[in-house]
Amino acid sequence: MRVGNEDFQSIWIDGADPHVIKVIDQRMLPFSFRIKELRSVDDVYEAIDNMTVRGAPLIGAAAAFGIYLATLEMTAATNVRDHLQNAARYLISCRPTAVNLSWAVNYSIGKLSEDMSPGSLQEQALKNAVEICETEKEYCRQIGVNGLKVIEDLREKKKGETLNILTHCNAGWLATIDYGTVTAPVYLAHDKGIPVHVWVDETRPRNQGARLTAWELSQYGVPHTLITDNSGGHLMQKKMVDVVFTGSDRTTATGDVANKIGTYLKALAAKDNEIPFYSLFPSTTFDFSIRNGAEEIKIEERDPEEVIFVTGSDGVEIRQVRICPEETKALNHAFDITPARLISGLITERGICRAEENEIKKMFQNKFK
Amino acid sequence: MRVGNEDFQSIWIDGADPHVIKVIDQRMLPFSFRIKELRSVDDVYEAIDNMTVRGAPLIGAAAAFGIYLATLEMTAATNVRDHLQNAARYLISCRPTAVNLSWAVNYSIGKLSEDMSPGSLQEQALKNAVEICETEKEYCRQIGVNGLKVIEDLREKKKGETLNILTHCNAGWLATIDYGTVTAPVYLAHDKGIPVHVWVDETRPRNQGARLTAWELSQYGVPHTLITDNSGGHLMQKKMVDVVFTGSDRTTATGDVANKIGTYLKALAAKDNEIPFYSLFPSTTFDFSIRNGAEEIKIEERDPEEVIFVTGSDGVEIRQVRICPEETKALNHAFDITPARLISGLITERGICRAEENEIKKMFQNKFK
Repeated sequence: MRVGNEDFQSIWIDGADPHVIKVIDQRMLPFSFRIKELRSVDDVYEAIDNMTVRGAPLIGAAAAFGIYLATLEMTAATNVRDHLQNAARYLISCRPTAVNLSWAVNYSIGKLSEDMSPGSLQEQALKNAVEICETEKEYCRQIGVNGLKVIEDLREKKKGETLNILTHCNAGWLATIDYGTVTAPVYLAHDKGIPVHVWVDETRPRNQGARLTAWELSQYGVPHTLITDNSGGHLMQKKMVDVVFTGSDRTTATGDVANKIGTYLKALAAKDNEIPFYSLFPSTTFDFSIRNGAEEIKIEERDPEEVIFVTGSDGVEIRQVRICPEETKALNHAFDITPARLISGLITERGICRAEENEIKKMFQNKFK
Repeated sequence: MRVGNEDFQSIWIDGADPHVIKVIDQRMLPFSFRIKELRSVDDVYEAIDNMTVRGAPLIGAAAAFGIYLATLEMTAATNVRDHLQNAARYLISCRPTAVNLSWAVNYSIGKLSEDMSPGSLQEQALKNAVEICETEKEYCRQIGVNGLKVIEDLREKKKGETLNILTHCNAGWLATIDYGTVTAPVYLAHDKGIPVHVWVDETRPRNQGARLTAWELSQYGVPHTLITDNSGGHLMQKKMVDVVFTGSDRTTATGDVANKIGTYLKALAAKDNEIPFYSLFPSTTFDFSIRNGAEEIKIEERDPEEVIFVTGSDGVEIRQVRICPEETKALNHAFDITPARLISGLITERGICRAEENEIKKMFQNKFK
């Protein structure tokens, strides 16, 4: 998508040097636009771990490129099977909640075999990663087409007035290689001249809303307003929100959604105010092995320093400031579970379905185990 | 309450110089403990406006001292009636949502008369302000005694395990001259050796939780953990919260509560997880003229810069950092409305009652119009 006047993806392989994967360093945005090079499995692990790259589909794609980089790290003495299995385990261990990570790694590994020559392994691993990227991009484009229907329906009810969409975290193109999930229909609506305005939750502790979603929307020229995570309920009470669109990091067979912490609170407020709440994600985000999100999904606990310190720009440089007493401790869960009963619909590349096991089964028959 | 080894109130008159009101500068906490002197009506207005002092009862007390300072600003040529009415209007205009402000100003003005001598006016206005302070303190002490019963009941159910209390914003002694409302029962429980632990919502945009509540609890030695405003729902889903205690800036005749923005979201989550949610406030916070909070209470809109910038310490000095793109705009509503149906009970100086008109009427018969 657009950065200034250029088009970017959030991950790509440089035509000039196929040993280098390039990503946008999301930790520096919106203060500085920097491209980072990943040259090893360790580089990929670190980039996922320190959130240079984040967002479920992007993490999956990055991990698939990680497997490709692993095939470049072999020598004649390498036990291919052990080497690839170790790389896979290592990469998967990095972010336990994001199902796309393990999905992408296992998909790529499944297409590799110890019988292949080093050259074929490299070629196939690269092909896998590129295929995952292209598939995710196409899924997002389709999510955009499907989500646009929801926007057009709501717009009719509003008789052409600006449609106010509330979102939490960043489920934009930075998170998904291109288009985004939540943002895909927003960009399409904007392109079609439908007046849309986005309420952007800042999304503490890492402020992905304030830093990334606001930046994406700025670059694309979509009207938006930053709000604190505390504000959405009040705006819904005041009928200043027409629809809530959020992403998903893992969706169960029954339609429960694990997404950025705080999503559940917005879903409760949407329900209480009869405002539609949609979850937008590619079908790679489904984990059909899980039925009860709240009980079965392990929620990642991240560094408490992310809560204690806030990162921003003082006009000259990027700084961290401490917001509480030195002796105060913090707790930092990264995700929460929005139960299916609070969700109006799931918008995927295949269409829109209710967050109910039977509907999900019907739509994803070939994927359901 | 305790600051280091000394006891403080959040507002007091200096014995040495009765022309000076002293307050703790809450904008500097927890990074620096500074006392500020207020010497004029303008000083009081500014201190309320820029949030040197904040919290419904403290704002009321400060405004009452403002009327006292107004009586010191008169000359022989002053039209007493006009002068006091202007001071009253000016002070009330500062924070529209906080009912204590207008209550305290009108209470003080009601006891003054243009027939009084300048000396009597000063004496009476000072007496009014001191009386308001002493009343608020006594109310908080009683709220503590009443809230302690809730803690003791819940503790029995937990069989002596640590009781986890979640709170939003600062309804501590800084906000209420002494004891606090939410914190009063917490301090009493802690003093009695009941194991309590407080989940402190950071409370964006101004972070009163991270900055003030965490500091108060630190100074008093109460175990607590800072969390983002997004976290409470997840902690409730995980049964890591036993009760929610919040304050109120204005309570309607029907039990709707206007409190710091984000309170409504926590009340929804408490309801969804069958966790008791109490609102603690002195009866001065009631506005019996209002029946529907969501429709009738005007919600103050504050400077968007409070959302765009975060204040903290970089270890050397207090700094502001911008957390979003330069071109991004923000919206900053200070309060939201928690409807009575989400509230388990109202804890005031008179006892605990359900958030229902009839129960409120019964308990506050002499105040109800």
